[in-house]
Amino acid sequence: MAITSHDVARLAGVSQPTVSRALRDDPRVSPVTREKVREAARALNYVPSEVGRSLSTRSTRRIGVIVTDLTNPFYPHVVAPLHDELESLGYRMMLLTERSDEAVAQENLLDQSLDGVVLATATTDSRLPAQLDRRDVPYVFLNRDTGRAGDYASVVDNEGGGRLVARELARLGHRRIAGIFGAVNTTTGRERELGFRLALADEGIGLPEDRVVRGPFEYDTGYGALPFLLDAAQPPTAVFCGNDVVAVGVLNAARAAGLRVPGDLTVIGFDDLPMASWEVLRLTTVRHDLPELARQAARLLVRRITGEADPAGERLVLPTEFVPRGTHGPPA
Amino acid sequence: MAITSHDVARLAGVSQPTVSRALRDDPRVSPVTREKVREAARALNYVPSEVGRSLSTRSTRRIGVIVTDLTNPFYPHVVAPLHDELESLGYRMMLLTERSDEAVAQENLLDQSLDGVVLATATTDSRLPAQLDRRDVPYVFLNRDTGRAGDYASVVDNEGGGRLVARELARLGHRRIAGIFGAVNTTTGRERELGFRLALADEGIGLPEDRVVRGPFEYDTGYGALPFLLDAAQPPTAVFCGNDVVAVGVLNAARAAGLRVPGDLTVIGFDDLPMASWEVLRLTTVRHDLPELARQAARLLVRRITGEADPAGERLVLPTEFVPRGTHGPPA
Repeated sequence: MAITSHDVARLAGVSQPTVSRALRDDPRVSPVTREKVREAARALNYVPSEVGRSLSTRSTRRIGVIVTDLTNPFYPHVVAPLHDELESLGYRMMLLTERSDEAVAQENLLDQSLDGVVLATATTDSRLPAQLDRRDVPYVFLNRDTGRAGDYASVVDNEGGGRLVARELARLGHRRIAGIFGAVNTTTGRERELGFRLALADEGIGLPEDRVVRGPFEYDTGYGALPFLLDAAQPPTAVFCGNDVVAVGVLNAARAAGLRVPGDLTVIGFDDLPMASWEVLRLTTVRHDLPELARQAARLLVRRITGEADPAGERLVLPTEFVPRGTHGPPA
Repeated sequence: MAITSHDVARLAGVSQPTVSRALRDDPRVSPVTREKVREAARALNYVPSEVGRSLSTRSTRRIGVIVTDLTNPFYPHVVAPLHDELESLGYRMMLLTERSDEAVAQENLLDQSLDGVVLATATTDSRLPAQLDRRDVPYVFLNRDTGRAGDYASVVDNEGGGRLVARELARLGHRRIAGIFGAVNTTTGRERELGFRLALADEGIGLPEDRVVRGPFEYDTGYGALPFLLDAAQPPTAVFCGNDVVAVGVLNAARAAGLRVPGDLTVIGFDDLPMASWEVLRLTTVRHDLPELARQAARLLVRRITGEADPAGERLVLPTEFVPRGTHGPPA
């Protein structure tokens, strides 16, 4: 019953393989013929089957993007530029929003229907990269990577960003400083903490474990951590948060506890999400170029697919910048 | 080079069709045989090809979810429960994050590789539903529908929610009331405005056009609209916003303009997103059961796919509830 490429071929007066090629803009088909085929396809309301197409070309022009944490506002802001950059490179983006890398691995989502994969929420203990390697599926890390040599990754200078914050806090005169860092199985969490600690140590400031909390990059991590930190004999005068979402949780917890920010407590985030500049938040944070982070990952993946990437791996690192707003100041 | 189902069949000592059936948990294959096949597949590191599988069964167990506006925080909160409910029903979710319905229609994404589609950001002027009908692809509307008879839709009682807000504002004594409604080509925008207007009229309160703004359900719509509304000779004492995201834009614009909320201005949203209860916002709003809205859509779609839905269409409507927090009060 369904219209096939054979029907389109008959109407356009070309062969069936020419129809397939014309509809995927294969340069071997002349523009005139392509237009003739498209017209015939439109007239018949023909929809090329991805199934048939992929069997004949082995390339689906589809990229899978794996995000295990879509309610974190970071990821929606990454998805739009990723989609647009992939589209401009001739690829279609499919978003796989599993609950965990483990689920992706188990569910055999990474089958032959994808030309490549972007891992946007990788953890350092994920089995996915090894599985993809085994199956020769090209992939890149976005934002988080594994920290291993040979990775293809588009990341931020997290360590440098952590240093910026430590230096600013020291300059303002803070000495009792706390950190609410990301999950320990993420490079973003580890590197931000590392840079922060190293630069604090340079200034002669310690960061004892009772002033450190680690957890998922979520609102609740910040919201839940602040009461714990305030409970200490000598509560901190400043908190560096693993990302803006955690910092927003801290700001709300501070409000609930009746603390003034920055009068009683300095709060600093990381990422500079759009919400950081809201008047009701005015969050001091660390900025990097979020859209470029995504676009760079898209271009790197396509270079891997087409065999143009460095066989030894490529780690593209975006710089960071301190963004002073309304949530930091000298200690009371 | 690649391992095929024939290799698995040989190792497991069964036929190739049995391998396919076993790996998709077909009940015609005994549990013992299924386990034997799985063991063989594991031993060979075999990945079933979706391509081959769909050619043999014509069912891919894949559902496409179309969201054209992922940076609106409403949608990420819908995607997680949708994913989980579809998974529990045996379907895999693919998120298509095009920029517009038009792009989805043009790009032939809705081909035979999907068993059904959830339209989460439909507009009343979209050509997609008609295209899906023509191709016999089962689909349901989530949150927004077309308002036409015969739709399959999981929606909210938007009109009722608009009425609740109008009655509350009238009760508090507001007479100069403004509305910042959603886009006119969305049923959510239209119905919330309609209910609000009708209930205001019942109370003898008019809503002149110079106190009405309509636009996308975005932060910038609210942020940009407030200065315009305040510019009037008799500025409003209360603003009903088409959703929480718009209301958050208004709250920030009010802060920027030096207005106290609710002392100088009452602001009310719609949806009760998690951020509405943040201490720095404490947004008074209209609640509905967002996860259930998504789960209900998933179940309805699967009933359509399996032929169990009412052939005349089904429109499942969730109730709304007024949630008083900190952004409403009597006029100054």
